Amino acid sequence: MARIYLDNAATSWPKPPQVVESMAGHLRDDGGSAGRGGHASAMGAQRIVDRAREVVGRLIGAEQPSCIAFLHNGTDALNTAIHGVLGRGDHVVTTVCEHNSVLRPLHHAERRLGCELTVVDCDDSGRVDAERLLAAVRPDTRLVALTHASNVTGALQPIEAVAAGLRDRDTLLLVDAAQSAGHARIDVQAFAIDLLAAPGHKGLLGPTGTGFLYVRPGVERQLTPLRQGGTGGQSDLPVQPTEMPTLLECGNANVVGLAGLVAGVEHVLEVGVDVLGTQIGERTRQLIDGLLGLPGCRLFGPTECAERVGVVSLLVDGYDPHELAALLELSAGVESRAGLHCAPQMHRRLGTSQGGTLRLSSGVFTTEDEIEQVVAAIAAVAAG
Amino acid sequence: MARIYLDNAATSWPKPPQVVESMAGHLRDDGGSAGRGGHASAMGAQRIVDRAREVVGRLIGAEQPSCIAFLHNGTDALNTAIHGVLGRGDHVVTTVCEHNSVLRPLHHAERRLGCELTVVDCDDSGRVDAERLLAAVRPDTRLVALTHASNVTGALQPIEAVAAGLRDRDTLLLVDAAQSAGHARIDVQAFAIDLLAAPGHKGLLGPTGTGFLYVRPGVERQLTPLRQGGTGGQSDLPVQPTEMPTLLECGNANVVGLAGLVAGVEHVLEVGVDVLGTQIGERTRQLIDGLLGLPGCRLFGPTECAERVGVVSLLVDGYDPHELAALLELSAGVESRAGLHCAPQMHRRLGTSQGGTLRLSSGVFTTEDEIEQVVAAIAAVAAG
Repeated sequence: MARIYLDNAATSWPKPPQVVESMAGHLRDDGGSAGRGGHASAMGAQRIVDRAREVVGRLIGAEQPSCIAFLHNGTDALNTAIHGVLGRGDHVVTTVCEHNSVLRPLHHAERRLGCELTVVDCDDSGRVDAERLLAAVRPDTRLVALTHASNVTGALQPIEAVAAGLRDRDTLLLVDAAQSAGHARIDVQAFAIDLLAAPGHKGLLGPTGTGFLYVRPGVERQLTPLRQGGTGGQSDLPVQPTEMPTLLECGNANVVGLAGLVAGVEHVLEVGVDVLGTQIGERTRQLIDGLLGLPGCRLFGPTECAERVGVVSLLVDGYDPHELAALLELSAGVESRAGLHCAPQMHRRLGTSQGGTLRLSSGVFTTEDEIEQVVAAIAAVAAG
Repeated sequence: MARIYLDNAATSWPKPPQVVESMAGHLRDDGGSAGRGGHASAMGAQRIVDRAREVVGRLIGAEQPSCIAFLHNGTDALNTAIHGVLGRGDHVVTTVCEHNSVLRPLHHAERRLGCELTVVDCDDSGRVDAERLLAAVRPDTRLVALTHASNVTGALQPIEAVAAGLRDRDTLLLVDAAQSAGHARIDVQAFAIDLLAAPGHKGLLGPTGTGFLYVRPGVERQLTPLRQGGTGGQSDLPVQPTEMPTLLECGNANVVGLAGLVAGVEHVLEVGVDVLGTQIGERTRQLIDGLLGLPGCRLFGPTECAERVGVVSLLVDGYDPHELAALLELSAGVESRAGLHCAPQMHRRLGTSQGGTLRLSSGVFTTEDEIEQVVAAIAAVAAG
């Protein structure tokens, strides 16, 4: 039985073949560490890092490649932003839709720095209202932390409207693009986003061990680096250099990972985010349509595909999500994910805290035939 | 002209072929994210992470695999330890031999938390005296941060004697094993080390994007996690779980990187750290012996190979180290590194702050013939 991989919200698979080739080629033939030494392989490694900054910057419409700092994963990028920005007693606005990669750093800041959190609610389909969120912003609000798309409901949030509402205020906007980067249009300049974090191994089709934080030019002056260390240059400075991206990057870059990320993002740029988003939208449409008619099957998130990404959460009456996931894998080779998906507040809001939901997340390589098989498998379970 | 890679102190190259195969195999055939989901590829990914913890733990003599947390690189591991441990006004003892990955986090803590640093000197060959270091430890000293081997002089430091001297005190010992892991014997239990940080891509022969922090059982209770986020399990907890390794790991693990690290460490375990250390010692002996006799060539670090790792710093009269590096690459394909090597205090101590030194660092695959060619190339330059 062929496997049907529908856990792309955790990490995308398969990767374009050139991702693997590029990584293997670097490791086997070149090696070398970026920014350290002027010899041929060190410079080759530096070119990989430069190229990664260039393609990621282009993908999200960054002012310049140096706005992009490469970090360990999306969580590292979010922590770098949140802890970089927050000081004692700061007020933060966030939402019930956030992942623990946003919620836990915020709770940490609450406990350690006496920060105050306002957690804005969403509607039943998981959408946050921009007006409602903006109404929670106070003159002393330091940060708004908002996911672009929930990893539970798939609902896209109105980041443009929120950014527009914050334009003339001192509050910084941090967008968590973990589920949207590579699948939904992001233009940090047009949207006026201050900080945007994303992993490299989901919609950007790169390998694990990669993630990035976009920092709008000038905003780096408001950031304290989470880590400090060797930066190749300016070694005589006792503290971390202040300019991007060196401010946020220290120690050896994950050159082999970035070699893969370059290939992944090049694929996304070549095909186009709009085309990939449409493709995933079609699969999601097919999946939702197939499931909507099933008796005992309950779906979460917007039914309109323009309002969501390819993450679909569901429950089938009489089945615990973990049991359902196991049955689907056994009967049809479906790899899905059951549980809270590291987003406890979202599940509390949906009334699914007990056991969470089953999540199916399509990727750019998910086929019509695969979705058909998944729907048939769920229908068979639902029919008992 | 074949290249002679002598920049293994920055990142090792080549890697054992199975490192590349293992990574490519995981990415191409398996994929999946560790600790997230119960399907086959997620469990396969988890097995890679478990195996990595097991082999790294075995290599350094850890009490159990869960003492090992995987992080982005050695610098990330050092930051996780230093910022995890230090609180307002704490006293820290460190040495002039440290890398910026230790010095900069400490200076950061000095500025932000009012920590007080005592920086212990070394002798002319770069060795720190254990008695002298221990004399600097006060009742209120929270941390001793000590490199196992300098990345400039190669000098091995007396970590066992320092650890023994701290055994009955409340002071924690953090060892930076960036240049020693995989090349010199480390036994965290026998040595009584509290915290040990190392990258995965140097002597452990893994890829970039990997590093680890060893935490002695119980010491995690004294650590505040640098980052917080999704941990797969315990999603309903608003803060980071308190047990190792989850305390220090969040977001997606670099599974593809760890697949490579497993293969690298398995190679080290199979051949044996002693054998690899002896091999590198022989190359280093040959290099030092070849250079000692050259007029105008000045060497740094211990001349006894038992007192050092394979990192050799030198200067040739009349040549700036960067110029020398360029000449050696041009004439003999030698890839070396010139400059301060992110260790400014070490160079101040050696009197080489102006331009630094040229560094040649052998790896486990460096051959006798390569060292012969390097010595001949330096001799040709020195002869003018």
